[in-house]
Amino acid sequence: MRNDAALNELSSLLGNRLSRSKSDLDLHGRSESHFPLTPPDAVAYPDSTAEVAEIVKICGRHGCPVVPWGVGTSLEGHALAFTGGVSVDFTRMNRVLKVNQEDMDVAVQPGVTREALNEELRATGLFFSVDPGANATLGGMAMTRASGTTAVRYGTMRENVLALEVVLADGRVIRTGTRARKTSAGYDLTGLMVGSEGTLGLVTELTLRLQGQPEAVSSAVCAFPTMEDAVNAVIATIQMGIPMARIEFVDPATAAAFNAYAGASFQEVPHLMVEFHGSEGGVKEEAETFREVVADFGASDFEWAVKPEDRKALWTMRHNAHYACLASRPGARAIVTDICVPISKLAEAVEETRADIAGASIHGPIVGHVGDGNFHTVLLFDEDNPTERAEAQAISHRMVERALRLGGTATGEHGIGVGKLDYMEAEHGDAWGVMGDIKRTLDPQNILNPGKMVRVN
Amino acid sequence: MRNDAALNELSSLLGNRLSRSKSDLDLHGRSESHFPLTPPDAVAYPDSTAEVAEIVKICGRHGCPVVPWGVGTSLEGHALAFTGGVSVDFTRMNRVLKVNQEDMDVAVQPGVTREALNEELRATGLFFSVDPGANATLGGMAMTRASGTTAVRYGTMRENVLALEVVLADGRVIRTGTRARKTSAGYDLTGLMVGSEGTLGLVTELTLRLQGQPEAVSSAVCAFPTMEDAVNAVIATIQMGIPMARIEFVDPATAAAFNAYAGASFQEVPHLMVEFHGSEGGVKEEAETFREVVADFGASDFEWAVKPEDRKALWTMRHNAHYACLASRPGARAIVTDICVPISKLAEAVEETRADIAGASIHGPIVGHVGDGNFHTVLLFDEDNPTERAEAQAISHRMVERALRLGGTATGEHGIGVGKLDYMEAEHGDAWGVMGDIKRTLDPQNILNPGKMVRVN
Repeated sequence: MRNDAALNELSSLLGNRLSRSKSDLDLHGRSESHFPLTPPDAVAYPDSTAEVAEIVKICGRHGCPVVPWGVGTSLEGHALAFTGGVSVDFTRMNRVLKVNQEDMDVAVQPGVTREALNEELRATGLFFSVDPGANATLGGMAMTRASGTTAVRYGTMRENVLALEVVLADGRVIRTGTRARKTSAGYDLTGLMVGSEGTLGLVTELTLRLQGQPEAVSSAVCAFPTMEDAVNAVIATIQMGIPMARIEFVDPATAAAFNAYAGASFQEVPHLMVEFHGSEGGVKEEAETFREVVADFGASDFEWAVKPEDRKALWTMRHNAHYACLASRPGARAIVTDICVPISKLAEAVEETRADIAGASIHGPIVGHVGDGNFHTVLLFDEDNPTERAEAQAISHRMVERALRLGGTATGEHGIGVGKLDYMEAEHGDAWGVMGDIKRTLDPQNILNPGKMVRVN
Repeated sequence: MRNDAALNELSSLLGNRLSRSKSDLDLHGRSESHFPLTPPDAVAYPDSTAEVAEIVKICGRHGCPVVPWGVGTSLEGHALAFTGGVSVDFTRMNRVLKVNQEDMDVAVQPGVTREALNEELRATGLFFSVDPGANATLGGMAMTRASGTTAVRYGTMRENVLALEVVLADGRVIRTGTRARKTSAGYDLTGLMVGSEGTLGLVTELTLRLQGQPEAVSSAVCAFPTMEDAVNAVIATIQMGIPMARIEFVDPATAAAFNAYAGASFQEVPHLMVEFHGSEGGVKEEAETFREVVADFGASDFEWAVKPEDRKALWTMRHNAHYACLASRPGARAIVTDICVPISKLAEAVEETRADIAGASIHGPIVGHVGDGNFHTVLLFDEDNPTERAEAQAISHRMVERALRLGGTATGEHGIGVGKLDYMEAEHGDAWGVMGDIKRTLDPQNILNPGKMVRVN
């Protein structure tokens, strides 16, 4: 069997923390994406950086692929072992190592999930801001350069990872960055690693920026007559400089899915979900300005959620949009798209996408982090119906073409994995070749998550 | 003469835009740093990206160093041709190419200075936030990952460069990034290039984020009994989450220099200079909270500058701190230090530095972007006095050691150049080796600004 020599050595190193059980392999062969079951040859559960380094060294000696695994919430097949090898599951490296309250930063192991971190931080007055819908691990979020609803205010993983510990392809352990807030000392290796999808190294520790819990928070939902009105309201809001903490778009189909899945009672029209963070007076002022700005676009049916439990219900619903959309067609699989465009092109991108979906036989609810110019469609198809799958793929393909034509990107926050690999050349031109050069330099054997992000052969 | 073959070809390409006049060479052999005159072999004045690519190709064929030049305000010898070669002066590539008002971004050529850009933007309601004291070029600022007084609110060049056009060592032209606000599509080559000091490529175009001019601005200066009080006031302010737009520390020596240079009338005690940006109500509320917080640390002598001309005078004075300090000892040269530490270590770092300078025979006024944990000393020495130079070097050396011991960085915003090269290994360990690997990959002949940032031989 392939990779047997490596697996034998890994077994000696890890004992029963190297699993080859079918259930475990299957568990690590499926993510929340639409890709077919792709089990790895084994699953390793390291306890420490030193063990991760040993795993990588062993795999390097035998040319065995090493594929990092968080909790499997990625959407582009990032964590699937398409060419076999070892899935390195960071479940056991899930400790919050040190909260530096004065400096508003925290050191964590890669297996900590964002919700677990925020639970741990609750008493400190601080929180970690980046929130993709899923309860992903922080290691996984760094590797896909994740963002979510609050990026418009607090940034993505790019802005919120201060420093990393990384195991390189040759087993060396490096530290990138420090706890200083800024530096001009050398190439930004932290930034190079964030978003590299495990193809340049395995992250074994992260130092993250934290934010102060705002003194006051206010959330709201409001309805719009048309999708264009809602999107234009977003553009106007951003251009007014209102410091939105969140501004999310929900289309009629998603509103209907929320009603069915979460017992909401939205009109089936476009909505915006917004949140303001600040002082009592500031939040009030911002909310009022927002209301005035969006009134020009026909906003109505304002519902304000000021009580913590109401806000929580609102954002839990938003975070579960993916699952709500899936539930709207039981048994369906989904291709989830993720384009991001300059905000001046957002109305055009959303409208063309809506029209495209309207002309298809499948459904595709639209939701988006529209303050960043980023939106998703959840293209639902019957796995056993090749026509539907082809339709979903074609709509997804046209969305990416549209994004690139409008000066945007194929993926705002989900990443490349294998799902968007075919668009790298169109988006980056010769710069994709430079990425390949960097990959070959840092991983000359191509053992680290091979087949993702770059093509090196 | 060395590099003659390259210079002959360059002369054919550029005609009289390749200069070998002594005055021009001398002008490009001296920056605002303490390094001795180091003229290049020639100065090239390209007009276009295509010409920059040709210059690099010609130099590549002959192994001739290529050193980018903005306006020579860097402080670590970045732009000096220590091993000869061609200084590529971007003076003629100084156009603002396109202001995208709706998207709050702008495309510029690298020779545009930050003041020229903001002049151009004046009527748009937008501004470019990054402001190192000097009126540097935007190309130079990207290359040193510059920041300045507003980084605490708006970020450094790392956060404000969206996309770049770069000429690589082999003459290929790549574009990194798009105008989308965020992306997960591939390695962050924009981030890799920002701060790379011209060692990985020559930037020929930048797309920069802009900010909306705030509705209301309020600035203030206040005095503190001791340096420790002032620094602890900063820490408390940051931890309170007051969204400072600027928060700058000025020590008694700098206050005295301001009095002499700019006709100010500060008490010769530590001061903070602060600024708030926001809505009328928000700014008022923040300023009031700030006043309450710093009162606990003995703040007094508040002077508020609300009128635009008063604010301008205040920040012009701050931006000229370097020149004011230089003028406090006519004829002196300066080593300007630039450490950055976690904010919880700031009081310790400043106090140890102060004591160190107090024990020396030379002067070293201290100023700092303390909201980021970043501060400078301007160590003034007589160029002809080796004892003084050695003292300045020793204090600078101990500051870096202190920063690294406290979990910080050798340079918050000035960069490595040659001046901080000796600290790269101590700060980064094996990660510095990775930087060298990347340099060798992207510039195998080591023609791009050789001798800076990494050692490749």
